[in-house]
Amino acid sequence: MAQDLEAAPRVGAATFGDRLAEAVERKRSQLLVGLDPRPDLLPVELAGDAHLGRAQAAEACGRFCRGVIDVVAQYAVGVKPQLAFFEALGSEGMRALEDVCAYARTAGLLVVADGKRGDIGSTSRAYAAAYLEPRDGQEPLADAMTVSPYLGRDSVEPLLAACRRDGAGIFCLVKTSNEGVADIQNLVLSDGRPLWQHVARIVAEWGEDLVGDRGLSSVGAVVGATHPRAVGEARKLLPRAVLLLPGVGEQGASPADVARAFTSGPASALVSASRSVLYAYRSVGDDWRAAAAAEAARLQSEIWAASGW
Amino acid sequence: MAQDLEAAPRVGAATFGDRLAEAVERKRSQLLVGLDPRPDLLPVELAGDAHLGRAQAAEACGRFCRGVIDVVAQYAVGVKPQLAFFEALGSEGMRALEDVCAYARTAGLLVVADGKRGDIGSTSRAYAAAYLEPRDGQEPLADAMTVSPYLGRDSVEPLLAACRRDGAGIFCLVKTSNEGVADIQNLVLSDGRPLWQHVARIVAEWGEDLVGDRGLSSVGAVVGATHPRAVGEARKLLPRAVLLLPGVGEQGASPADVARAFTSGPASALVSASRSVLYAYRSVGDDWRAAAAAEAARLQSEIWAASGW
Repeated sequence: MAQDLEAAPRVGAATFGDRLAEAVERKRSQLLVGLDPRPDLLPVELAGDAHLGRAQAAEACGRFCRGVIDVVAQYAVGVKPQLAFFEALGSEGMRALEDVCAYARTAGLLVVADGKRGDIGSTSRAYAAAYLEPRDGQEPLADAMTVSPYLGRDSVEPLLAACRRDGAGIFCLVKTSNEGVADIQNLVLSDGRPLWQHVARIVAEWGEDLVGDRGLSSVGAVVGATHPRAVGEARKLLPRAVLLLPGVGEQGASPADVARAFTSGPASALVSASRSVLYAYRSVGDDWRAAAAAEAARLQSEIWAASGW
Repeated sequence: MAQDLEAAPRVGAATFGDRLAEAVERKRSQLLVGLDPRPDLLPVELAGDAHLGRAQAAEACGRFCRGVIDVVAQYAVGVKPQLAFFEALGSEGMRALEDVCAYARTAGLLVVADGKRGDIGSTSRAYAAAYLEPRDGQEPLADAMTVSPYLGRDSVEPLLAACRRDGAGIFCLVKTSNEGVADIQNLVLSDGRPLWQHVARIVAEWGEDLVGDRGLSSVGAVVGATHPRAVGEARKLLPRAVLLLPGVGEQGASPADVARAFTSGPASALVSASRSVLYAYRSVGDDWRAAAAAEAARLQSEIWAASGW
């Protein structure tokens, strides 16, 4: 086995759970700043007054994200680039994504690529290569990615392999932050449980053999902070998983809504906030960098306090 | 309403269902050739003997896809680029994707972007912009895209808007071609039906007001050809939907397995084959272009015959 260089772990590749636990405790932060760059919401200093072509928009979005990273790096444990907003800017947007991810890592931030990918095994291997594996001798684009579980175990297997081999992490959708959860995720199964709780159990199984020294699995789960009761139930169903909790800020949830997510340790949940940090300047009327920094600082301390650690 | 330029339909934008019906009948083909470019499987004429860096690999994959398009254009009604394989090559890969999609459209082929995207509404709008909407005055990257329904109706709404406004189409995952369907899609609900059948009904509802003059909705469904009985059941649950049927070829299904998908019209189903066409040369030992052409021609006629039209 040791002769198979392809399958050998990277030297010093700790598990994602261990790396995250170390970073959270060192920075006393469980905040992920979501990077959702939208050309129409950029500060005029970056976007100008005229309509931007895609290449210009990608350049401006890249500068915006790097500027945000500069000022939130001390308050956040990581960033969560939302791939859709980069894809919307075409190949130039994907180039900006690569720059932004590298910049974030240099700033000491973990990177969670939020793309909610999920496909059959042979395709899932390509997603692992795209986001979680070292590329041409360089670091992987991201430390972890979000994953849709709808296709089942074999669709996730190549990503689990990257968790084992490269110290990567995944966050599987369990109960998302939007109203549409009623349509599928809340459906009641023949045993009386809602579908999302069954998915939570499956995700817990997927992560069972990927628990690191600090007690956290490399397989986490996405649970909307907009459903506080579900956060508590998910915590019980997924005792070793890191819960990724979107929905704070623009979507209406508060740090207090997610307090119960942290009972498995200070790093057992991450709270992501995107628009409320990135575009804080639009409501407070401050400089965009100062406004993002202030909001990130506020969220960091409120979440840390709510977590009880 | 007519004053809202943003929401005005493109001049002459027929519905996706109508455009598809016209193309299928004109070409007598229901074949979609899946474009899954893998650097390790490329002909040596394109890839050379040495390990390719990502930029070189993206260039070689682009040339390969364009070469395949040249020879299958007369047999296929469209191509289905699998986004993961382009994403795995980074921003250069996404540039190759843009080239390949434009090339396919010039060759008169419909383009179905296979990315199985699905996210909350504000993010879903970005996916619509990325793949289905005109960009900077240019044609959209694709005519249709595949979509994961796990987040429910509000996650799909921006894509339905692109169907209405831009003549785009979507194909929602209902029952995929892999073994992992047992884990989630086949779960039995409290009313005794499997989850995937409930999803089929929801998808039918999403497409109800998007039925074109030819009787087909712009909202289609992905059903694995590897589950022949489910194909027939999906046909009944989704009488207006175009069924996109992967799994023929490398995954083991045959054209005969999908015959019952076509009872709603010659364009009411599309059969996709990827590896068995692209890499036909590896088993038959022929020139790669000739081998792909022969396999596409064979599939076109077998599927057309099986469809009974």
